[in-house]
Amino acid sequence: MVTIGPSVMCADLGRLTENVQELDRAGVDFYHFDIMDGSFVPNIALGPDLIRALRPHTDKPFDVHLMIDEPERFIGAIAEAGADMISVHAESKVHLERALQQIRGSGAKAGVALNPSTPLCALDYVGDALDYVCMMTVNPGFAGQRFIPSTLGKIGDLKAKLSRLNRDIRIEVDGNISHAIIPEVIRQGADMLVCGTSSLFLPDRPLAQAVDQVNQIVRQARAFGTEG
Amino acid sequence: MVTIGPSVMCADLGRLTENVQELDRAGVDFYHFDIMDGSFVPNIALGPDLIRALRPHTDKPFDVHLMIDEPERFIGAIAEAGADMISVHAESKVHLERALQQIRGSGAKAGVALNPSTPLCALDYVGDALDYVCMMTVNPGFAGQRFIPSTLGKIGDLKAKLSRLNRDIRIEVDGNISHAIIPEVIRQGADMLVCGTSSLFLPDRPLAQAVDQVNQIVRQARAFGTEG
Amino acid sequence: MVTIGPSVMCADLGRLTENVQELDRAGVDFYHFDIMDGSFVPNIALGPDLIRALRPHTDKPFDVHLMIDEPERFIGAIAEAGADMISVHAESKVHLERALQQIRGSGAKAGVALNPSTPLCALDYVGDALDYVCMMTVNPGFAGQRFIPSTLGKIGDLKAKLSRLNRDIRIEVDGNISHAIIPEVIRQGADMLVCGTSSLFLPDRPLAQAVDQVNQIVRQARAFGTEG
Amino acid sequence: MVTIGPSVMCADLGRLTENVQELDRAGVDFYHFDIMDGSFVPNIALGPDLIRALRPHTDKPFDVHLMIDEPERFIGAIAEAGADMISVHAESKVHLERALQQIRGSGAKAGVALNPSTPLCALDYVGDALDYVCMMTVNPGFAGQRFIPSTLGKIGDLKAKLSRLNRDIRIEVDGNISHAIIPEVIRQGADMLVCGTSSLFLPDRPLAQAVDQVNQIVRQARAFGTEG
Amino acid sequence: MVTIGPSVMCADLGRLTENVQELDRAGVDFYHFDIMDGSFVPNIALGPDLIRALRPHTDKPFDVHLMIDEPERFIGAIAEAGADMISVHAESKVHLERALQQIRGSGAKAGVALNPSTPLCALDYVGDALDYVCMMTVNPGFAGQRFIPSTLGKIGDLKAKLSRLNRDIRIEVDGNISHAIIPEVIRQGADMLVCGTSSLFLPDRPLAQAVDQVNQIVRQARAFGTEG
Amino acid sequence: MVTIGPSVMCADLGRLTENVQELDRAGVDFYHFDIMDGSFVPNIALGPDLIRALRPHTDKPFDVHLMIDEPERFIGAIAEAGADMISVHAESKVHLERALQQIRGSGAKAGVALNPSTPLCALDYVGDALDYVCMMTVNPGFAGQRFIPSTLGKIGDLKAKLSRLNRDIRIEVDGNISHAIIPEVIRQGADMLVCGTSSLFLPDRPLAQAVDQVNQIVRQARAFGTEG
Repeated sequence: MVTIGPSVMCADLGRLTENVQELDRAGVDFYHFDIMDGSFVPNIALGPDLIRALRPHTDKPFDVHLMIDEPERFIGAIAEAGADMISVHAESKVHLERALQQIRGSGAKAGVALNPSTPLCALDYVGDALDYVCMMTVNPGFAGQRFIPSTLGKIGDLKAKLSRLNRDIRIEVDGNISHAIIPEVIRQGADMLVCGTSSLFLPDRPLAQAVDQVNQIVRQARAFGTEG
Repeated sequence: MVTIGPSVMCADLGRLTENVQELDRAGVDFYHFDIMDGSFVPNIALGPDLIRALRPHTDKPFDVHLMIDEPERFIGAIAEAGADMISVHAESKVHLERALQQIRGSGAKAGVALNPSTPLCALDYVGDALDYVCMMTVNPGFAGQRFIPSTLGKIGDLKAKLSRLNRDIRIEVDGNISHAIIPEVIRQGADMLVCGTSSLFLPDRPLAQAVDQVNQIVRQARAFGTEG
Repeated sequence: MVTIGPSVMCADLGRLTENVQELDRAGVDFYHFDIMDGSFVPNIALGPDLIRALRPHTDKPFDVHLMIDEPERFIGAIAEAGADMISVHAESKVHLERALQQIRGSGAKAGVALNPSTPLCALDYVGDALDYVCMMTVNPGFAGQRFIPSTLGKIGDLKAKLSRLNRDIRIEVDGNISHAIIPEVIRQGADMLVCGTSSLFLPDRPLAQAVDQVNQIVRQARAFGTEG
Repeated sequence: MVTIGPSVMCADLGRLTENVQELDRAGVDFYHFDIMDGSFVPNIALGPDLIRALRPHTDKPFDVHLMIDEPERFIGAIAEAGADMISVHAESKVHLERALQQIRGSGAKAGVALNPSTPLCALDYVGDALDYVCMMTVNPGFAGQRFIPSTLGKIGDLKAKLSRLNRDIRIEVDGNISHAIIPEVIRQGADMLVCGTSSLFLPDRPLAQAVDQVNQIVRQARAFGTEG
Repeated sequence: MVTIGPSVMCADLGRLTENVQELDRAGVDFYHFDIMDGSFVPNIALGPDLIRALRPHTDKPFDVHLMIDEPERFIGAIAEAGADMISVHAESKVHLERALQQIRGSGAKAGVALNPSTPLCALDYVGDALDYVCMMTVNPGFAGQRFIPSTLGKIGDLKAKLSRLNRDIRIEVDGNISHAIIPEVIRQGADMLVCGTSSLFLPDRPLAQAVDQVNQIVRQARAFGTEG
Repeated sequence: MVTIGPSVMCADLGRLTENVQELDRAGVDFYHFDIMDGSFVPNIALGPDLIRALRPHTDKPFDVHLMIDEPERFIGAIAEAGADMISVHAESKVHLERALQQIRGSGAKAGVALNPSTPLCALDYVGDALDYVCMMTVNPGFAGQRFIPSTLGKIGDLKAKLSRLNRDIRIEVDGNISHAIIPEVIRQGADMLVCGTSSLFLPDRPLAQAVDQVNQIVRQARAFGTEG
């Protein structure tokens, strides 16, 4: 099954509760939060307090993407604030296996996030503690960047690699996942779509309508996939 | 004149636009934003995108407190997002005079923020480029901490020091500025009050009423001050 | 040949000389020291002065595992203090080939230590200067952690990789190498066992007896290995 | 009263329990531990596990000197290992007031350590949470360095400053506190002496005799002081 | 075609303009500049101002090798100073794909530099934005180091890998590229040779003669290559 | 006596030997080198190799200003390359007293450099090992910045402070020391002038003439000073 989750940093940051309620009613599957520290990425954004503030307003899973160095310092606070899924970057200053165990220990699903240029061998020996991979399709840090073409084949490579491991590890894609690109990433094996300014948060239509459209594109892509 | 500004990180982070509109109508003077990087302080919060999102909803000054290392990297983005005042910490990794010049160059007022334990000599040679001092009365990073008693006398020391320099430099106080402490910090010389969970954002009363109460306490404190 | 070495950080830190003398008599093959800097790993321990203090009390090799960033800064001091083998982490801030050359230049054997999640390609181009690999089977930093199952297959993968290179590079395993796991790691190709709180330093028996038991398990494992 | 405490890093690191028992019998007042991270100082030494190992062997206070960056990360572990006094460096990456509060909160006495060149204004606003000052009389990181003459007058300056504050804050001196210098530092106001290789740990006499000699020098110095 | 470029840090740093004019007349193809920050490498050298100073004196391409952490901070200044090619290290603190895009965006050719021990999988997913690879054949930071034998086979491995990608990506070799080694690196697939103290800057002959000799060795090597 | 020294980074970086020879003949007193690491300051420049290259071409003292973090790492290399004076920044990551001792130990004069906003108490306890103070009158990192007015009074404050210490410590001023400002800094107490693009390296006149003019301004200023 393919699920879709709005990128919270692309919502109206002044009306997040309202946005969440509207997105909930429209049928999104999860919420994606980008925590940025100005060191691992050149931007600062969001934080545990925001997660805590929104937690009472929806029952959907909160997926928190830690774009930070030494993520072990914040996993506890993020989990306590209400995260159901937490991913850490393989390229950050991190003991990757320890961080994944720590996430699992907090009760959340554990993910590894990979920058566009990071080789897949980074995942060779993290299988025991891994629930999902967050594959960046732009460089992390900002909304509105161009989708990087080479990441498309990389999704397929990851899918093949995970199939060989024969474990139920989900592939999330994050970064300019537009209407046009959705069928392609699904074809390559993506099953969690982070949706931002190029698919869900559009100036010309209400959130409910945008969610419907994305869901429809996803259904069609999966139908074609089944046929193919 | 003594002005009051809500600490945005203490507002309802899911309904900030609504909170700002309500606070505006109730008569606050400015908004205080704490940007945290998880390195200079052990928390991550807010960021330029949030400032940009709220900017259209009020004409009051935005006062942005950079609790980050190497603040020079973000002054441009923060100013562009809509800041009218920006303060940097003397204790962070920073070229203090350069940062103040950079803030001024961006069109904003330039402030130096001081941790509770930082000596006032940190300000001996920044007078040319300084518009205000943000005196921390708790350790930066979290809401809801205990007011540190020794900072009270420090406000007075700072007031005396600035009087000797004979320049119009404002003193902002930040950290558990409660109803009880407001008259005392005003007596010591504070003229900008950052108001959070112990004065403005109270579980038992609406924002408008809380603002009224703070304004009344301020007026009384100043009346006594004039008498004294 | 499979050798065993006590992990010094698991000994009685108040009676190290006595412990070393006892372990020497009981027939251990080397001593393993973990130097921790609180930055590469979240603990601080041991240091060059301790190595220097114990050096006169045994002729066995001292194997020093640098769990530190920028290990090049300390290789000289560690070698001079009496190390015969020094390993540096591929994941630390390091120029790996330079560090290995520097170790060799100091007269010691040069090792690369790998965290549980680090892919083996990290060793693709260090063959010229490599004497041994320290394969972590727990995350580095603390005694008493759970053995990570996926590292077992990784030892076998490393053995196969080294066999292809056809060079005499030893495989050391480090992290909860218990009685039960010893035969398995030997079967996978380990030939240096770091022994700590789950095999050598046991509350219920003297060191001499514990060393005998480990040596017996090793002999049996190797006998089976020869048969198989 | 003037107290004396051996510097544990100068003891026989292979026989610490024995050394502690001997020093206890000889009448030392406390034990001083230097924790070094290789980043704040160019050496790595000791750590929480060592403190824990020695804790059962004496009832005297353990005074732990954190020569590390971001000491807040380790205060909890150090206190739990058995520290009664913990000092942090004003020059390290630290929120000084927060660290002192954290030490007090752990049940230990809170100290600030100052490098030889650090000005005393660093203490202007930490009075509320301060129990003692560890005044370095050599640069931190190594035993056996030359006493820095200018620190002598600095002890007197500190004594005068603390007298003005009228609070019971002790002055500890640390770094080549030799027989010859002891009377001078006492005259300046020191009341805790960290004793290392130039007074207690001498190649030519047993620990008991060395402790007696230091205690005698201290008594004489105080007698003169009373007279003077 | 195989091109040769003098390593500017090996020239007479007091007479660079003169050296460049002489090298230009002698027929070198490009100039190679090593920018060092004392953090990524243990040396500090060159900088944007030097590039700017030499730019008016030759029309040959300037190839700038950033041996620095967070190279994104300096790409703009380096390009503006006159660089035509810029390479960043895969092992530095960097978002590799973002840095390459930033270099391309500045109008320069984008390269990835690899330390001797870095595995080639570092290049698996940077193909879209890559113009050349700078393969270090010594550890970066100093002139006059020994050529590392294992890098020879690594050049061949890289050539094979790039051939599979079927893209026009050049291979530059950097580090003790002596007369003796030139034919070998060309045979393995190198097509840009950085020439320093072991081929171009020789105490016993003028630059013009040294350039001629290198060019002749290159021509012979390529002739043999064609034959073979 | 007041001495003048050209800032080497403002010379023609392509013809430094020639510039040095010309400046020598014209009668400058010393040469000032700024070593920048891109971390302490936002620029990278010069380095030990450049100092070594120019050393044979003049007998005048080389004064090296380390605008770098952890300067202890480079003091040895800089001294060996030919420095006669070395200054380190009080605001950098440094053990200030240790660095000064290390400089003295290398045979060079030891200086402390101060940023424009750094309070003078930074010098309270470094008197034993101090030969000169490098007072920045612009923020370090770039040529061509505006002189900061508040630094003028700071020079006078420093002069007064050093007079009280009654030691022969020289005051060097560095940063846009123009013709107009020279008399003023001399009046305040400066006795070493670092001369760059606003006094010595002028587009409209030869170096010899520029040196003459500066020397004449200095003589006049001192004559007035003697009168006054």
